[in-house]
Amino acid sequence: MKKYAFGVDVGGTTVKLGLFDREGNVIDKWEIVTDKTDGGKNVLPDIAKAILAKLDEKDIDKDDVEGIGIGVPGAINSDGFLVNGAVNIGWGNFSIPEELGKYIDLPIVAGNDANVAAYGEMWQGGGKGHKSIVAVTLGTGVGGGIVIDGKLLVGTNGAGGEIGHMHIEDDETEACGCKNHGCLEQYTSATGITRLANRRLAKDDKPSVLRNGEVSAKTVFDAVKDGDELAIEVAEQFGEYLGKGLAIIAAVVDPEVFVIGGGVSKAGTVLFDYIVPAFKKYAFAACRNTEFALATLGNDAGIYGSAGLILN
Amino acid sequence: MKKYAFGVDVGGTTVKLGLFDREGNVIDKWEIVTDKTDGGKNVLPDIAKAILAKLDEKDIDKDDVEGIGIGVPGAINSDGFLVNGAVNIGWGNFSIPEELGKYIDLPIVAGNDANVAAYGEMWQGGGKGHKSIVAVTLGTGVGGGIVIDGKLLVGTNGAGGEIGHMHIEDDETEACGCKNHGCLEQYTSATGITRLANRRLAKDDKPSVLRNGEVSAKTVFDAVKDGDELAIEVAEQFGEYLGKGLAIIAAVVDPEVFVIGGGVSKAGTVLFDYIVPAFKKYAFAACRNTEFALATLGNDAGIYGSAGLILN
Repeated sequence: MKKYAFGVDVGGTTVKLGLFDREGNVIDKWEIVTDKTDGGKNVLPDIAKAILAKLDEKDIDKDDVEGIGIGVPGAINSDGFLVNGAVNIGWGNFSIPEELGKYIDLPIVAGNDANVAAYGEMWQGGGKGHKSIVAVTLGTGVGGGIVIDGKLLVGTNGAGGEIGHMHIEDDETEACGCKNHGCLEQYTSATGITRLANRRLAKDDKPSVLRNGEVSAKTVFDAVKDGDELAIEVAEQFGEYLGKGLAIIAAVVDPEVFVIGGGVSKAGTVLFDYIVPAFKKYAFAACRNTEFALATLGNDAGIYGSAGLILN
Repeated sequence: MKKYAFGVDVGGTTVKLGLFDREGNVIDKWEIVTDKTDGGKNVLPDIAKAILAKLDEKDIDKDDVEGIGIGVPGAINSDGFLVNGAVNIGWGNFSIPEELGKYIDLPIVAGNDANVAAYGEMWQGGGKGHKSIVAVTLGTGVGGGIVIDGKLLVGTNGAGGEIGHMHIEDDETEACGCKNHGCLEQYTSATGITRLANRRLAKDDKPSVLRNGEVSAKTVFDAVKDGDELAIEVAEQFGEYLGKGLAIIAAVVDPEVFVIGGGVSKAGTVLFDYIVPAFKKYAFAACRNTEFALATLGNDAGIYGSAGLILN
């Protein structure tokens, strides 16, 4: 059993890196700039250099390293092949382990960033102690990652856990970013919550603190905590959509726990006051008591998850 | 590598049994009556006796048998424990492998009957050649079974693949058998199709051959094949519900293929004319070309799947 592993999370602006021990403790973490020039061709060599320099700095023998896990922003099949490129980096379709392996001689596993983050939350985050989780990331969009019996559900086309694009509303006139209409993301992302709030504000003249300043997911849930009635209506709508969506997911994969993360989750457990009642209303009886937890690793979920993929 | 395995499918009226070779060929299949007296306490001993007699009859050494797979009509966890009993047999909660193991000394694995049938369709049926499938059984109700990377998705509460109870319609006044409202099963089971047809017939006086006789899933799709306009409207509604439901499932587990079975599937590929367009309309782009196939094993899916569980 080797002592260490590296977890890498490739983003459009920075690459996050972490050195972990077997137990999942982070020994060191740092960032490098994502060099997107020339179709991102320097990104993997830069990662290799950064890891080799860290081994040198910490005086760690490469033979003591289990390998490198890496999460990237694109659909990846179970062999680590990027099937539709990664537009945010400028990458086309290629095998991440094969390409990174040219610059550093260690075992490498690659995964999609949202899936890898879900794995991190299962291993060391809000889903710790569980083997089957659905991680839901409520950010600008809605992402998801599914782990079943300790294994990532990647999907045939890398679309496993693409729960932001579940159809949830038949009566939607605006298109989602994916061009469909009525996707879960249109109501439960940060952008979606803002949209629900603006629609509600436009409906009538009901007073609300939201009329006095910026309307965002944050201001909506701040207002909810202050008892603002209109904001509470918006939270109920949000909870109805997300609770219904998660109830549908429970009837498909029946996880132990839903782990809610992303920017919106900074509102805290107040979210559950609106999600859970709707979930129970729509859930199949056998899974009505599925647990809910907040994600705890924040932006580090990716480095934890990628290290976890290589260590477990 | 041992040469043989037994597959057993426990139903409320009969128990189906099959003797298989490693390649998945059925060497012999037969049925015994399900003796439901005394809380079904004779069922497992009867199965053991039937298998021992078959070994004797075929002059097969027990050492040449890999084991027994068994599907039962109830939620079963990954250890083969019946978590909510099996009301159709009269069984309470116990470990199937442990109990059956008292009467026959062979390795035993147990699963839920719908899940096991899904596994059978993947191994030797409509999903043959695939590793990740969602099997949909359109019978009196709607059942499902999910296999991901060759492994059954059982679920934390045995509710993995309970897709008949996905919420799909907000505007439903009648309750589903599960007491919720708007479950997929209410529109796409044999009973559900009959309900859709009766609702449509009651709406106005549009002529239809369905006004002249029995209204059932079979007569609806027979009428569709004859170009009956009203029946085609019903088929479109059915396709809209099922296509939408399967598109949602694709955004969660992203299978290679949907395998459609159950009594309704006897209508044949005409079903796909109504399911697939709706599926493509609602599906996330990456999984829009997921394949569709008809189940091919019929009532034998259970014995194939349970034998497959022990052999693979």
